Amino acid sequence: MVAAAEGPQSIAPFFNPKSVAVIGASSKQKKIGYVIAKNFIESFQGKLFLVNPTVQEILSHKCYPSISSVPDDVDLAVIAVPAKSVAEVLKECGEKGVRAVVIISSGFRESSEDGAKMEEELLNLARKYRLRMMGPNCMGVFDSTTMVDTLFIPRYRLKRAPRGKIAFISQSGASGIAFLDWAAGERIGISKFASYGNATDVDEADLLDFLATDKETKVIAMYLEGIKEGRKFARIAREVTKEKPVIVLKTGATEAGAKAALSHTGSLSGTDEIFNAVVKQTGMIRVSDWEEMFDIARALAYQPAARGNRVAVITNGGGAGVMIADEMEKQGIKLVELGEKTVARLKEKFPPHVTLRNPMDLGGDADNERFREAISAVIDDEAVDSLLLVCIPHTPSIDLESFVDMVVDTKGKNEKPVVVCLPGGRVSLEVRELFEENGIPTYPTPARAALSLSALVKYGKLKNSDQAIKN
Amino acid sequence: MVAAAEGPQSIAPFFNPKSVAVIGASSKQKKIGYVIAKNFIESFQGKLFLVNPTVQEILSHKCYPSISSVPDDVDLAVIAVPAKSVAEVLKECGEKGVRAVVIISSGFRESSEDGAKMEEELLNLARKYRLRMMGPNCMGVFDSTTMVDTLFIPRYRLKRAPRGKIAFISQSGASGIAFLDWAAGERIGISKFASYGNATDVDEADLLDFLATDKETKVIAMYLEGIKEGRKFARIAREVTKEKPVIVLKTGATEAGAKAALSHTGSLSGTDEIFNAVVKQTGMIRVSDWEEMFDIARALAYQPAARGNRVAVITNGGGAGVMIADEMEKQGIKLVELGEKTVARLKEKFPPHVTLRNPMDLGGDADNERFREAISAVIDDEAVDSLLLVCIPHTPSIDLESFVDMVVDTKGKNEKPVVVCLPGGRVSLEVRELFEENGIPTYPTPARAALSLSALVKYGKLKNSDQAIKN
Repeated sequence: MVAAAEGPQSIAPFFNPKSVAVIGASSKQKKIGYVIAKNFIESFQGKLFLVNPTVQEILSHKCYPSISSVPDDVDLAVIAVPAKSVAEVLKECGEKGVRAVVIISSGFRESSEDGAKMEEELLNLARKYRLRMMGPNCMGVFDSTTMVDTLFIPRYRLKRAPRGKIAFISQSGASGIAFLDWAAGERIGISKFASYGNATDVDEADLLDFLATDKETKVIAMYLEGIKEGRKFARIAREVTKEKPVIVLKTGATEAGAKAALSHTGSLSGTDEIFNAVVKQTGMIRVSDWEEMFDIARALAYQPAARGNRVAVITNGGGAGVMIADEMEKQGIKLVELGEKTVARLKEKFPPHVTLRNPMDLGGDADNERFREAISAVIDDEAVDSLLLVCIPHTPSIDLESFVDMVVDTKGKNEKPVVVCLPGGRVSLEVRELFEENGIPTYPTPARAALSLSALVKYGKLKNSDQAIKN
Repeated sequence: MVAAAEGPQSIAPFFNPKSVAVIGASSKQKKIGYVIAKNFIESFQGKLFLVNPTVQEILSHKCYPSISSVPDDVDLAVIAVPAKSVAEVLKECGEKGVRAVVIISSGFRESSEDGAKMEEELLNLARKYRLRMMGPNCMGVFDSTTMVDTLFIPRYRLKRAPRGKIAFISQSGASGIAFLDWAAGERIGISKFASYGNATDVDEADLLDFLATDKETKVIAMYLEGIKEGRKFARIAREVTKEKPVIVLKTGATEAGAKAALSHTGSLSGTDEIFNAVVKQTGMIRVSDWEEMFDIARALAYQPAARGNRVAVITNGGGAGVMIADEMEKQGIKLVELGEKTVARLKEKFPPHVTLRNPMDLGGDADNERFREAISAVIDDEAVDSLLLVCIPHTPSIDLESFVDMVVDTKGKNEKPVVVCLPGGRVSLEVRELFEENGIPTYPTPARAALSLSALVKYGKLKNSDQAIKN
């Protein structure tokens, strides 16, 4: 299929429109058209036009009987009317010169053959009028800067995530919501979100292409069940990963999953081997769960990519050090020998039971000062590219608040990424939050910390090889 | 090595002593001997004797100059004196007829060759006096029923976990603490805990053997870096898994991990292939991280093992259903076809867009009533052995509180285990807690929920095959 209008900038009006029309805005609180209208009224800074032929106003906002009767230009129209009326409305949008439409309505290809025919008609209209169309059957867009918010879940049920550097695009609406809610709960910043539903016009590749140019976005995360156009996707993904890391959660990996995906979004998910080949070739990072996706996205959003694969581990719990060594090796990353100077510098200062190897076990009696000496020496060590810190926070010798300050002070030093493992479930949540607020990605288990640091190493490797090609 | 006294009941006094002596009790707040004495004074219900030759009393408790001068029998002695004095104290304990000692003190095999010789002497003494010895170089014991608590981290820094059905034994003290803190934070109930340090006498196999007989314990979780006596361990583990599930987190899996383990506890961790063979042969469940360990332990503690491997999934988010189908297949578990009766029964009641396959996608508009119908039909379905429920909780049609009640009502019905996936990070924490308090294990991601249910399936398979052999 050829898109109705080409180029990543044709996607911009979805996220950054000067004026928005909500077609199918409703005054009934339970209606999707009410929730969307309310979102825009509450937060959108641009011009807003509500369209509904049967009411005069909604939440004290004037209603227009049709998009044609709106007295101004409209960049983005959000369509939430019954399936059978969508084509007519879309035609009107075309006549009006609307540049982008989000079609929330469902009842198309995902429902029936008749629906598929109606969907084909929508695509023809979009092409004819050279407008871009997201959906149908989607949640649409959330932009934490412009506050475009077509999510039809009320904000009291789905808190919106704070502003941040991670963009997320999702084929599945429900997975998209779960992701957003997680981000809101964990206070992880999101730049842009899009759930693009049936991908009739705008698909995952278009969004990726656009997000590569977006200044608010440092990391792109995607949830996919299938890919519409494999070659286009691979070509664009290869280009995008040169600019920013792309994390992909692709389901339908197994036979059972592929069957389930077919009945869920009608996606032909293809074989997993092919997709893994695409992942490798494009330099994307594949994950198998939301938790992994968040863990890695946070690391890539907060920290620089590692310049090389030489990882050092400092811990006050030997067991955690062993787990991290295991996990790193599984990821194909070896723990390096520390530089001679580092060992000599620390040997002088530390008691004999401290293990001056890698992982460096500072001992259960390590205090902040011992950590500070070790971190400082390792960050100065030219044989080391990145640092994973494990702090078992329960020993009385650790003062947690100043520990956070001390680690935050290392941020960006020698451009070496730092990741922290702070075990202890909910009890450690507050301290983990302090770290996160200051840009230090922090994890409750050694495996999750190791996986996240390994993503910084792998993305660094990709960047370096791209750099080498450029020079 | 031959243990000083044999049989699992020789381990009982560590957890259920009538009388305890704390040797090296201290009046100085920063000392280990103070923290331990305070723990017992605050919570232990049996007889308590503090031993310290230099002070008259600690926290208003009388001190005895030596264990010999204690006027009563002593079941358990906790020894927290400098390494060089431990042998002398142990000898006195032997003369006194003490049945079990926990040696907290470090400075033995893990430190130096001289230390190794001193440790050998301790073992000889333990044998001579036929007492059981835990440690040296350990955190010792926590029992949530008897409140034996030798953990030398003050309770304001390390909250103790509530009573429950999961026992945990750890070779590493720091890993043990991290586990306990996690359990306390997540309010996961623990029956017994032991960190056994150098394993000079009491080792992982002895503890396993004892915990198999412990009525408070339904699930045993272990953290290992190496195994002292492989054959003894394998023989005992095989017997124990017939009674209760055993989850094992064994590090030193890779070359790097093994090297780190050697420098941490001096463990020769052996090759991973051998350990995996032992895992398979004994029916233990191997995990690779604390989080997995907790996830699976909760499932096994709260829910019955599945009678067969026929898993059904009900969801209001299609994407999550796909992820679970993937994850289940990775675990070697197929999602079954639902019974004809079930499909017929639900087809009548549900709108046409509900997918009456497995995973059953109830649609984004599913309300509590639709969930109730589906759950009830699936639990009655003879083609199904267990149920994984996914609830994307943000759609306005779901009433969360009564949703919890409804699911809790299914508990134990037809002896089919039920596990819930409730996505959404910290936002869903409160609801997840409600589920957990009522014995429904609940997870924030599809992958974690699927892994946990698969453990119930796998343990059920083991139980059934053991049952078949018995009959």
